Amino acid sequence: MEVIRPRLPKGMRDILPRQMVLRQRVLGIVEEVFAEFGFEPLITPAAELAEILLGKYGTEPEKLIFMVQHPGGKEELALRYDLSVPLSRVVAQYPDLPKPFRRYQIAPVWRAERPQKGRYREFWQCDADIVGSTSMLADAEIVALVYTVLRRLGFQQFVTVINNRKILAGIGQYSGVPEAQLPGLYRAIDKLERIGISGVRDELREGGFNAPTVDRLCQLLWPAGGIQATLDDLRRELADFAIALEGIAELEELLGYLPALGVESGFYRVDLAMVRGLDYYTGPIYETVVEKPRIGSITGGGRFDGLVGRFSTQSYPATGTTIGIERIIDVMEELKMFPPGETLVEVLVTVFSAELLTESLELLTDLRDSGLRCELYYGTEPLGTQIRYALKKGIPFLVIMGPDELASAEVAVRELGTKSQTQVARADVGDFLREQLDRQGAA
Amino acid sequence: MEVIRPRLPKGMRDILPRQMVLRQRVLGIVEEVFAEFGFEPLITPAAELAEILLGKYGTEPEKLIFMVQHPGGKEELALRYDLSVPLSRVVAQYPDLPKPFRRYQIAPVWRAERPQKGRYREFWQCDADIVGSTSMLADAEIVALVYTVLRRLGFQQFVTVINNRKILAGIGQYSGVPEAQLPGLYRAIDKLERIGISGVRDELREGGFNAPTVDRLCQLLWPAGGIQATLDDLRRELADFAIALEGIAELEELLGYLPALGVESGFYRVDLAMVRGLDYYTGPIYETVVEKPRIGSITGGGRFDGLVGRFSTQSYPATGTTIGIERIIDVMEELKMFPPGETLVEVLVTVFSAELLTESLELLTDLRDSGLRCELYYGTEPLGTQIRYALKKGIPFLVIMGPDELASAEVAVRELGTKSQTQVARADVGDFLREQLDRQGAA
Repeated sequence: MEVIRPRLPKGMRDILPRQMVLRQRVLGIVEEVFAEFGFEPLITPAAELAEILLGKYGTEPEKLIFMVQHPGGKEELALRYDLSVPLSRVVAQYPDLPKPFRRYQIAPVWRAERPQKGRYREFWQCDADIVGSTSMLADAEIVALVYTVLRRLGFQQFVTVINNRKILAGIGQYSGVPEAQLPGLYRAIDKLERIGISGVRDELREGGFNAPTVDRLCQLLWPAGGIQATLDDLRRELADFAIALEGIAELEELLGYLPALGVESGFYRVDLAMVRGLDYYTGPIYETVVEKPRIGSITGGGRFDGLVGRFSTQSYPATGTTIGIERIIDVMEELKMFPPGETLVEVLVTVFSAELLTESLELLTDLRDSGLRCELYYGTEPLGTQIRYALKKGIPFLVIMGPDELASAEVAVRELGTKSQTQVARADVGDFLREQLDRQGAA
Repeated sequence: MEVIRPRLPKGMRDILPRQMVLRQRVLGIVEEVFAEFGFEPLITPAAELAEILLGKYGTEPEKLIFMVQHPGGKEELALRYDLSVPLSRVVAQYPDLPKPFRRYQIAPVWRAERPQKGRYREFWQCDADIVGSTSMLADAEIVALVYTVLRRLGFQQFVTVINNRKILAGIGQYSGVPEAQLPGLYRAIDKLERIGISGVRDELREGGFNAPTVDRLCQLLWPAGGIQATLDDLRRELADFAIALEGIAELEELLGYLPALGVESGFYRVDLAMVRGLDYYTGPIYETVVEKPRIGSITGGGRFDGLVGRFSTQSYPATGTTIGIERIIDVMEELKMFPPGETLVEVLVTVFSAELLTESLELLTDLRDSGLRCELYYGTEPLGTQIRYALKKGIPFLVIMGPDELASAEVAVRELGTKSQTQVARADVGDFLREQLDRQGAA
């Protein structure tokens, strides 16, 4: 039989057990916070009907969508590109879902992008959204959710940048930018990080905006003063543009809720020039940047009141965020923010000899019953070999049940890090190991 | 903008939050037991190169594989059909993975089968496998794993049926069945449940086996006596067929380990006529049937020592099981094996009035910090409306922070099931709610 060379599709990857140790810890914390915030999990199929996905993201993203078919299949299917469009479909499809509908979804999405370091064609997204409320409380809770997740993961310094698309639209109107040109305006502003303010000015000029318009825009987008003074100025300056006033009021309301939701000042700020990439945002938008170390944006979201309406004559307001867990995991690994663990296995149960195998099996079963994560050594090689195996796998503890232990109803417990070995009464060994492991975990 | 009718691809489904409550409990228990048995998680991409998947399952299954492509893509991709072939690829691709390699994977697979009740084109598989050991201890641990998972889920009566493909092969040789016809023999025997023993006899006769062969086969496959007597008989009868003797010895060894691994008698038995569908099994095979209620097979697995060899000149022995979690969840739901829960949310924080909103937000934040799963009511509707919302969602507790409560530094806690309401000191409300919820959970 021909041997097929084992390999992965371009831009895809396996996540091996050793990498899963940190990943599970991160996801465990994220899901814990989601639950505390009243979000519940949702699963949607990986493949949607193509017509559900197409026409939602713009022409360029659409080229990256993977199509799916099977011999004889009549439907055109495609792998999901994000989790927002499937959510919108779900909300439209099941009108009886209680509102506000607070769901989270942690699942892979697929994009045929050119692979590069840290960017894959299958990657996991982690979204939390609230559908069915126009309240700024919902947006404030999303900001608080992001804050709580990142703090609990151990991030010390980050800023959630907040803005409102309605203010941007008002600034556009004030500056004489026709509605149809707003996306072009947003795209130019969005390049600030890369091309600087003079680059943005050039971009706007090339985009057909005249010099006075560009000046007015820049004054409003990058004001000199503090946020409250700026908003007061803006409210005066844009008094004739209802959408701007609405955006300013929304922004102030949202900011007002954050202290009582436990979000400490210093962890958020307003930036009127923050626009976010996607077309479908309609109100508050937010993204979180880790400043130390400088690793860029790790969460992003906002209000998208129109998306569900693509699938239903009854639309629903919606707001939410993506948390970039892949990036967060990479960063936490680089920064060694968690004690390194190589395996989830806590105890290796050794086998002293074929004669004592049954006693080792019984010990194994007891330890598992007490909730310890145990592996059995398959074989009766000398103890040194079994110890080397535990060391290679990074298992922290090892237990030995030899003839002496059997005679005295004890078990030898060896801690591999310190090489210390303790005789423990057979009946107490589960509790003893649990204490030792808790002590290690706390250290 | 045209409205697109929200709907799912044929045979696929959403798993909505209400269904996720039970699902998460089941998966939580399954993963807990996997961890105690020293299995670690693995993620592989949904799409594999087509040549990795094709030629492994047989012609009929292969027609069910979904193909994947993207505009301009040069690779032929396909959605995985099971988790065993991706595991085999992984083991061949990373030869440095410590052996035995014990991994579990809980993930969707895709098969374009004709949809019917309880059968979907995307469904979740849950596999635990041990690669790199020929020891019967590994097979015994798989049987013990299945036993422990099902017991902990609350199943009271089930049987893991155990057999060994080597015995079947030996019986085939003894009866004069050429090696090439063995799959046909297995297929016929496998129909016992559906067509009865006389049906199997007919099938074998039609398949070209002569009458004396069929008689010999049936005598050996469905012996009258107990298992030990049967194995002794078989060992005598098949003394000239090395493969049969090897299979008998393996079976006895495996059975010998089960008591010390905590598997109670009555929860397993040997059936020499149990064959399992797939071609790639080479030694012990096992499947679990729930007998009360009669719901058929919910786990299945066995040893597949050849599969990794399809991807590497260095092959590895392997054994493992699939646990049919979709079926298990359906059954547990039908049997109401868990107290019904409609939501994971534990507490609704009400808002008495706009003036007291900040106090409600602070209470909300404190309760979340203490680990409670809380939702905030968005609005200042009368309390009756807020209570009806909690009832509709099935949230068990609700807290009220009105002017009286604020004055006395208390919070009113209402249990929606009993309609009882208690005034609790503001500082103690988190602990109080946790106790009440634990009490409810224990009831």
